[in-house]
Amino acid sequence: METIVSPLRRVFCRTAAAVCATLLLGIAAHAQSDPLPSWNDGAAKRTIVSFVADTTTPGRQSFVPEAERIATFDQDGTLWVEQPMYSQVLYCLDRVPALVKAQPELANAEPFKTVMSGDRAAIARLPKEDLEKLLAMTLTGMTVDEFRAQVAQWLDDARNPRWKRPYTELIYQPMKELLAYFRAHGYRTYIVTGGGQDFVRVYSERVYGIPPEQVVGTAGATRYGYGKDGKPTLTKEPKLLLNDNDAGKPEGIHLMIGRRPVAAFGNSTGDREMLEYTWAGSGPRLAMLVLHDDAAREYAYGPAQGLPDSKVGTFTQALYDAALNNGWTVISMKNDWKRIFAFD
Amino acid sequence: METIVSPLRRVFCRTAAAVCATLLLGIAAHAQSDPLPSWNDGAAKRTIVSFVADTTTPGRQSFVPEAERIATFDQDGTLWVEQPMYSQVLYCLDRVPALVKAQPELANAEPFKTVMSGDRAAIARLPKEDLEKLLAMTLTGMTVDEFRAQVAQWLDDARNPRWKRPYTELIYQPMKELLAYFRAHGYRTYIVTGGGQDFVRVYSERVYGIPPEQVVGTAGATRYGYGKDGKPTLTKEPKLLLNDNDAGKPEGIHLMIGRRPVAAFGNSTGDREMLEYTWAGSGPRLAMLVLHDDAAREYAYGPAQGLPDSKVGTFTQALYDAALNNGWTVISMKNDWKRIFAFD
Repeated sequence: METIVSPLRRVFCRTAAAVCATLLLGIAAHAQSDPLPSWNDGAAKRTIVSFVADTTTPGRQSFVPEAERIATFDQDGTLWVEQPMYSQVLYCLDRVPALVKAQPELANAEPFKTVMSGDRAAIARLPKEDLEKLLAMTLTGMTVDEFRAQVAQWLDDARNPRWKRPYTELIYQPMKELLAYFRAHGYRTYIVTGGGQDFVRVYSERVYGIPPEQVVGTAGATRYGYGKDGKPTLTKEPKLLLNDNDAGKPEGIHLMIGRRPVAAFGNSTGDREMLEYTWAGSGPRLAMLVLHDDAAREYAYGPAQGLPDSKVGTFTQALYDAALNNGWTVISMKNDWKRIFAFD
Repeated sequence: METIVSPLRRVFCRTAAAVCATLLLGIAAHAQSDPLPSWNDGAAKRTIVSFVADTTTPGRQSFVPEAERIATFDQDGTLWVEQPMYSQVLYCLDRVPALVKAQPELANAEPFKTVMSGDRAAIARLPKEDLEKLLAMTLTGMTVDEFRAQVAQWLDDARNPRWKRPYTELIYQPMKELLAYFRAHGYRTYIVTGGGQDFVRVYSERVYGIPPEQVVGTAGATRYGYGKDGKPTLTKEPKLLLNDNDAGKPEGIHLMIGRRPVAAFGNSTGDREMLEYTWAGSGPRLAMLVLHDDAAREYAYGPAQGLPDSKVGTFTQALYDAALNNGWTVISMKNDWKRIFAFD
C-alpha cells in the first residue's frame, strides 16, 4: 500500500499547503485593511486598536479569555444623536394623538393639551411631573407585543427634523464600526442605556447588531396574565425595577450580565459610574467618553472645554478632568471621526 | 496555461472530494453516536430528538433561526436534587455559625439559636418569618465579591448527607447531556430558577456550562458605593427586584432575555407559567416536566400519580393533567433515565 499511498499523500500535502497559504494570505490581507475606516488616525483610534490586540492576542500577559470579553455602550449621545431631545421622549410625544383619540377626555387635560397644541416652547417647559405622567401613559398599560408594534411603526414613520431621516439612521458610523470590530475579536457588545430597555430592544438587533438579550436599560415590571383568547400576556406596569442611569448602570450590569465589563463607552455624567466600575477591574481596561464638539456636522454641547450647557447628555468639565486623571480616553467627534453618519 | 493547470486542478478536485467524503463520513458517524446516552429509548427522548431536528434542519417549515433558539431550564428538581431542602437554604443554615461568631449577640436570638442547636426537626419547624430573616441575614449585606467567595468556599466544603458528595455533583446526568445537545444545535441554554441569581451564577458555568449572563433567578437590588480603598463596590441589599417563581418566571424571562423561549423544562407548579408562556408562541415548541418517581435512585414525591406530597417542588396531579391536555411531555426519572448521576 505504501507505494500507492505515498505519491497521493505527497500530492495531497502539496495541495493542502497551497490551500493553507492562500487562506493565510487572505487573512493577512484582511488584517491589513482598516476595520475602523471612519476614524482618523490619532490617540483614540490607536488606544482602541492596541487594547483589542492586547486583550485578544493569545500568549500576551494582558490576554482576556473570550468568555470575559464584555464591552458596554451607552446609547443616547454615544451610539446615536440625543439632541435636541432623547428619541424615546419624542416617541412619547408622538404617541399623544393616538392616546387622545382613544380617550377623548384627555384633550383638555394637561400635559396632553399642551402636547396637542404643538407649541414646542411650551412643551419644552412642561414640569417634570407632567413629563413623567406622559411617559407612564405612553410606555405602560399595553402588552409587550402591542408596545413592540407601536415602536416599530413609529420607527418606520418618524423623521428627524434636521436630517429628514428615520431616527435609526442617525447612528454614528465610527461607533458602528467599533461595535463590529469588537465583535470580530470575540467581544460581546452590550447596550447599557438610561433609555427604556423594551424600547431599544425593538431595533437594537437590526441597527447595531445587538440582540435583545444584550440590551440593559431602564426597566419597568411586567404583569403576567391571560388575554381574551386565553393566551398568556405580559403587560407593562408603571412600576420601576431599574433606573439604569448613574450608579444604576453598574447595578444593572450586575443584575443583567453578572460580569464586570472590560471596556465601557459613554458620553455624559450618567455614564461615570459605569466607567469607574469597568476601570476598577484587574487587568487591561478601556474607558472612553465621546465629546460632542462638532457643531457643524452634529452638535457641540458639554459644558466640558467651554462647550455650551445642555439639557441632555451633560459632559461637565469635572468629568473631563476626571477622565484625564484616570487615564480614560476622550473621543473628539470633530477630530477623531472622519465622518459622523453612514450617509455623510 | 490551460494544459498545465488542468491536470493539477483534476488532482486537486479528486483530493478535495476525498477529503470531503472523509469529513462527511465523520459527521455521519458522529450523528449515529447517541448524544443522549443516559436516556432510555422512549417517548420523552424521541420527542426531544425530533424537536431538535425539526427546529434546526434548514429547509424545514419548522426551522427556527439560531438567534431565536432559546431553551430555559428550571434548576432545583430539574437540573439537580432539591430534596430534602433546596441547596441554597442549606447554604444559609451553614452560614449561621460564621454569622454568630461575627455578632455573638445573635447566639441567643431566634432563629439563630435553633439553627445553632443542630436540632433538625426544630429547624424544619421554623416559621416563614424566621426563615426569611435567616435568608436576608446570610444573603445580603456583603459585597457581591464577598458573597461569591463565601458561596465558592461552601461549595468546596459542604457534602450532601445521603450521597456524601459536593452538591454540584448531584446534577442529573441526562439533563447535562440534554443541555450539551441543545447547545450543539445552536440553542442558548438559560437557567430560570426560583433560587438566587447570584448564588447560581457562582457555579453555573463550571457545572452546567451556562455562563452567568444566562442565569435568570430571584434577584435583589445591589447598591453601588466605594470601599475603604476608594474602589467601587456593589453591596447586596435586602430589597427584592424579581421573585422568579410562578408568574415571575415569564416576567423574569422578558426582563433578562427579552425573547420568548422555544423550549422550557421544569418540574413543579412554580414552572407552570414558564411552560405556558413558552408553549403559546407560534411555531414548534417543547415543554417538558421532570417527574420524581424514583425513590430508589433519587426521590419519589409529587403528589402527581399518587406520589407523596412534598414541601419543595410540588408536582400536583392537576399540573400532570394539564401537561397531558396541553401536549407537554412528562419525563419519568424511573423509566426515561438510564442513570441519574454521572457517578451512578
